[in-house]
Amino acid sequence: MQPSLNAGADGVEIRWPDGTVGEFPYIWLRDTDPAGFHPQTGERVFDLTQVPLDITPNATELTPEALVVTWDAGSVPSRFDLDWIKAHRPGQPRPDAADLAPVAWRAALGGEGVPRHDADSITGSDAALGAWLQDTKRFGLSIVTGLRDSTEAGLEVARRVGHLRETNFGLTFEVVSKPDPNNLAYTSDALPLHTDLTNQELPPGYQFLHCLANEAEGGGSTFCDGLAVAEDLRARDPQAFEVLSTVTVPFRFHDSVTDIRSRKTVIALDSRGRVSEICFNAHLADILDLAPAQMTPFYRAYRQLMEMTRDPAYGIALKLSGGEMVVFDNRRVLHGRQAFDPSTGFRHLHGCYVDRGEWDSRLRVLDRAARG
Amino acid sequence: MQPSLNAGADGVEIRWPDGTVGEFPYIWLRDTDPAGFHPQTGERVFDLTQVPLDITPNATELTPEALVVTWDAGSVPSRFDLDWIKAHRPGQPRPDAADLAPVAWRAALGGEGVPRHDADSITGSDAALGAWLQDTKRFGLSIVTGLRDSTEAGLEVARRVGHLRETNFGLTFEVVSKPDPNNLAYTSDALPLHTDLTNQELPPGYQFLHCLANEAEGGGSTFCDGLAVAEDLRARDPQAFEVLSTVTVPFRFHDSVTDIRSRKTVIALDSRGRVSEICFNAHLADILDLAPAQMTPFYRAYRQLMEMTRDPAYGIALKLSGGEMVVFDNRRVLHGRQAFDPSTGFRHLHGCYVDRGEWDSRLRVLDRAARG
Repeated sequence: MQPSLNAGADGVEIRWPDGTVGEFPYIWLRDTDPAGFHPQTGERVFDLTQVPLDITPNATELTPEALVVTWDAGSVPSRFDLDWIKAHRPGQPRPDAADLAPVAWRAALGGEGVPRHDADSITGSDAALGAWLQDTKRFGLSIVTGLRDSTEAGLEVARRVGHLRETNFGLTFEVVSKPDPNNLAYTSDALPLHTDLTNQELPPGYQFLHCLANEAEGGGSTFCDGLAVAEDLRARDPQAFEVLSTVTVPFRFHDSVTDIRSRKTVIALDSRGRVSEICFNAHLADILDLAPAQMTPFYRAYRQLMEMTRDPAYGIALKLSGGEMVVFDNRRVLHGRQAFDPSTGFRHLHGCYVDRGEWDSRLRVLDRAARG
Repeated sequence: MQPSLNAGADGVEIRWPDGTVGEFPYIWLRDTDPAGFHPQTGERVFDLTQVPLDITPNATELTPEALVVTWDAGSVPSRFDLDWIKAHRPGQPRPDAADLAPVAWRAALGGEGVPRHDADSITGSDAALGAWLQDTKRFGLSIVTGLRDSTEAGLEVARRVGHLRETNFGLTFEVVSKPDPNNLAYTSDALPLHTDLTNQELPPGYQFLHCLANEAEGGGSTFCDGLAVAEDLRARDPQAFEVLSTVTVPFRFHDSVTDIRSRKTVIALDSRGRVSEICFNAHLADILDLAPAQMTPFYRAYRQLMEMTRDPAYGIALKLSGGEMVVFDNRRVLHGRQAFDPSTGFRHLHGCYVDRGEWDSRLRVLDRAARG
């Protein structure tokens, strides 16, 4: 059975035999004509200012494969493949191989529930790379195992995704205790759960921490899923959730050579209202500058979230061994560490970041290749 | 004359002789105690969960230099320098050397009105570096002159600001016409005014285009101040401005190895309602996916903005010579180029990006150093 076409004043309606209905405004059809895209670069070259907003066609027609729109006698008709136009119905989310449903997790996951993937497989096979990318995106966290004892080994895995995200701490960084630290990570103190670099306009996406040595007493790694915490807060205390997802607060990092500041909400939502990001870092929270009347509601909501991150119902702990690398979405999963005693052994992690954009791009390109 | 102190149930009020009044909630004072910050890293180490939200002090007192808050018999009182606490009154914008009032410009600026700064001065003197950073941020555009004939010369200037922003086009890029382009910039076609990489979650901030050769016929550079266009649109057609600053639309770049997508508004506003960003790139605008009823209002507003960018009232054109480098805020100033004829001579620009975060950080650090 063929779909049916109904041409109106502003656009056409197509009804497919399976009940799907699409409404396609004429100006959208003109702007979306496949002939208006550059044959090599795929970029739109059609110039919207060259047609009137209320453009109407001379004729519209359905063939067995296509919708054909004839604009005027002199121009080539626009031709839209019927499957393509069904998938691109205005008002529908576009299919996206990177749009994976997240698995929110709590303490019950345990260190043993964290997805584990082998480094050699990831570097050697696109299928293994894709499976690891998907798992890590769904859980926000994974462990890569079997890395050789070289800082290059972790970077090789990271570069399978895309280029590294440089920050003021460099392209890569060493987490060891340092004599003159500019950051608490570089001490042997415990670090409560946090997300990194909330003072940046775009905090780094995925963080890679390759464990080269972890022989000191203590120094376990702790994680909690900010998505689970935020969703539970939304259910439990909608008012606190509202404050944290709408009120922007200042973050700042400064040392002798930098002073990087950004204002943002602690919880960010995407255009569909889903939690897209957690920015939670008490160390980098700048002196609060809200109006006095906003202070108490903010502190109440913020303290509530902070207490939830400490709640044993959410956190997991694991002690990385040499040759393991933890990979997590720094904009979703909070990380921390237990204090360690540097006199009892060496603790050395080598870190880098790859942003979410590169992660999602790789998921899409692998999916495209897998579909041939 | 001394300020006066009035302690209430939730906080203290301080009135300065010059009429300034500050309200300081107790929970804010406890959270902001200078002793709660790490002496070396400057990061907050005070743990908010350790005190009740409704904390009240045993005593508050003004000395000639400080506000002193005594919490309880066992703990060291919090001590706030009076000048410091006046500058950090809740509800006041924090002084920020990077918060420079922008100069919105239109065609009358002309190519000759673009601020020009000398490369050797920028690389050799912090004062010259600061003056150039300020000018470029205020106008969104400057020309650096006197670069030697080496791609390194432009990068040296860029690295005076901070590290380069890598993208899928590399850490640096060459704008020349290429046989198999993945981007219209790499053809000899005219490029209408646009901002780069709107398909990235964070489009690159400042763009550096170092001209090594521009001997072909044509190939002039064009610019327009997106801030001026947006502010004029806000005044002229508030409804269009509202649509463009609230409706998110999809952007996408894809080639054989990447597929990077992002959704954003064409005009972004900061928390004070000021225009903070323009994302305008018809080439990277993905197939529009708005609901059918949203299509016409969006196309109307978008087309309006697009026509304004073509209006001679806004644009300036200049032809860069070898040894000149144009530097502009890619998230504010639109750039384009006139077509050129590659058979008449060589045109070669070498480009890179440095993000706004690094720019603002350098402004603050230079300002701090200048104040001693």
